[in-house]
Amino acid sequence: SRSINLAVIPGDGIGQEVVAEGLKVLSAVLPQDVKLETKEYDFGARRYHATGETLTDADLDALKQHDAILLGAIGDPSVPSGVLERGFLLKLRFAFDHHVNLRPSKLLPGVATPLAGQPEIDFVVVREGTEGPYTGNGGTIRKGTAHEVATEVSVNTAFGVERVVRDAFARAQARPRKKLTLVHKNNVLTFAGHLWTNIFNKVAAEYPDVTTDYIHVDAATIYLVTDPGRFDVIVTDNLFGDIITDLAAAVSGGIGVAASGNINPSREFPSMFEPVHGSAPDIAGHGKADPTATVLSVALLLRHLGHDAEAARIEDAVSADLAERGGLPARSTSEIGDALAARVAG
Amino acid sequence: SRSINLAVIPGDGIGQEVVAEGLKVLSAVLPQDVKLETKEYDFGARRYHATGETLTDADLDALKQHDAILLGAIGDPSVPSGVLERGFLLKLRFAFDHHVNLRPSKLLPGVATPLAGQPEIDFVVVREGTEGPYTGNGGTIRKGTAHEVATEVSVNTAFGVERVVRDAFARAQARPRKKLTLVHKNNVLTFAGHLWTNIFNKVAAEYPDVTTDYIHVDAATIYLVTDPGRFDVIVTDNLFGDIITDLAAAVSGGIGVAASGNINPSREFPSMFEPVHGSAPDIAGHGKADPTATVLSVALLLRHLGHDAEAARIEDAVSADLAERGGLPARSTSEIGDALAARVAG
Ligand SMILES: CC(C)[C@H](C(=O)O)[C@@H](O)C(=O)O
Ligand SMILES: CC(C)[C@H](C(=O)O)[C@@H](O)C(=O)O
Repeated sequence: SRSINLAVIPGDGIGQEVVAEGLKVLSAVLPQDVKLETKEYDFGARRYHATGETLTDADLDALKQHDAILLGAIGDPSVPSGVLERGFLLKLRFAFDHHVNLRPSKLLPGVATPLAGQPEIDFVVVREGTEGPYTGNGGTIRKGTAHEVATEVSVNTAFGVERVVRDAFARAQARPRKKLTLVHKNNVLTFAGHLWTNIFNKVAAEYPDVTTDYIHVDAATIYLVTDPGRFDVIVTDNLFGDIITDLAAAVSGGIGVAASGNINPSREFPSMFEPVHGSAPDIAGHGKADPTATVLSVALLLRHLGHDAEAARIEDAVSADLAERGGLPARSTSEIGDALAARVAG
Repeated sequence: SRSINLAVIPGDGIGQEVVAEGLKVLSAVLPQDVKLETKEYDFGARRYHATGETLTDADLDALKQHDAILLGAIGDPSVPSGVLERGFLLKLRFAFDHHVNLRPSKLLPGVATPLAGQPEIDFVVVREGTEGPYTGNGGTIRKGTAHEVATEVSVNTAFGVERVVRDAFARAQARPRKKLTLVHKNNVLTFAGHLWTNIFNKVAAEYPDVTTDYIHVDAATIYLVTDPGRFDVIVTDNLFGDIITDLAAAVSGGIGVAASGNINPSREFPSMFEPVHGSAPDIAGHGKADPTATVLSVALLLRHLGHDAEAARIEDAVSADLAERGGLPARSTSEIGDALAARVAG
């Protein structure tokens, strides 16, 4: 479309700094005739402390009016663990049915990896975003006593699994290697495991040109460090996806460059794009944060909205910048943003 | 004690080969006056195919008579996923209340790691072994239909969490660095997360000399590849422990050298010691499997039974052998076992 109406949520800590650079690059890459409108929202720790609110129904109604959401990071040590995660981040993913959590991992030239021998890494994880143990099902009895019992319930539905598995097959088919790996733990979590495995195998029959395999989540962490090149597209549940995408980010250059999209493919609700990293309060305010992950999240956002050429321009600019980076003096958050904006403006 | 009555379960695939070497080293290390009795059990795929049985009540009664159990590996592609895992391995852990699943990770000199720069790695994971999503709680409705719902319930009790947390604190206190890290996901799994965190903090107050910290499981996978030296003792739940110990094994030399103990500290039932690796049917029967992980599991077994000096002799022999290994021609399973047996016999 010829206009983008974007909700911007800088959030906490370095979120403010990196989002500013993401927007700088977004403005620079868009052609003159695409109108960009942005509206900033003040979600996060300050709003929570000031009002006790994390995300109200009115907020959701306001956010719904946008084409997409760009988020920096939410979270601060002053807020008890879980409050902003469950009350904002997960609430939004569930409210807007962000069932495809897309996390590409590509080791770009010039980027350091903790792995020896600079292996080739280029895969994408399709993490389910609205089910599994993230549903908040479960509870506690006899809290605080010696007889406390706390449960967490992983909920998996045929509906929820099939739609994300189909999305992953379509993505695998569109990539040159056409390979899809299911990651689960079906030898122990046999109820959910059978559901995931059966649906995966059923849909696989419709994609004869996609090569498939299955790996237990524990073994997947081994392959991610010993043979990450074996992966092309991975589909997995919400919790396993959370765990392996942090590891994937670490081996493919670190969370400074890891982007993600919380996607509602039906576009019934706006999708949200955010760097995988958190708010990093320890370095916030010093202009030290690497905005690259946010800039790459902007590329995912543009691709989601159909601006493929602009998305590619951003990705190329990031690749070029990273390839040069070894030779550059250390730069601030805004210097990196300026450099990327200059490149995409071309 | 002056005698060891050992149950031996070679199991499937390379289990047979590696257990033979483990026993060879065990015989060689024991002083003359310690009587070693062994009884072999035929659990695994062959027994399952022949009889449909995985582990009967009579089997459990027989195993109970032993001081400890040495296991090779259980699992074969001819058996549906989950049958031997739930029907044998997990059944045994639950029946014998193996609530401390001990998995040391030490990068020994001369051992290759996929990480750049050969970092120092020396930590131990205390994985809870009888709760979490491993309990088999959960179920399926409308199986095979478009409306299937499958749940997995993670069960966490104050009793179960406190005993494993106490075990981990005691282990941390006995180590030079005296540091204990809780790994969980308490910002999302808030019911179980609060239970784990509260008990961890409560017990910490009794161990003022132990330094503590907390890391989310996803972030823990990052540290395991970027800064594994930060860990000393880790305590975590059954599923997170499963995942991070495979990664820990990978970064500290691979599953060829990763040992584990399924321990009942009260000694009410025999504890079981096993390499972290599986049955590796692809290389079984060729004398290619590395028996080191099994030999190190024998060392854990000896330490559990109070034979600390013999355990240390085995660990020293393995270190010396691995340090030399780079200079040695490739050796077979039994050649490695012979070399280790010769060293410990001293
Ligand atoms: C902050 C937390 C709720 C979140 C998650 O667990 O999904 C984060 O780890 C992520 O991966 O986006
Ligand atoms: C085989 C499987 C049941 C087992 C587990 O998940 O505990 C294995 O992965 C392990 O870590 O010992």
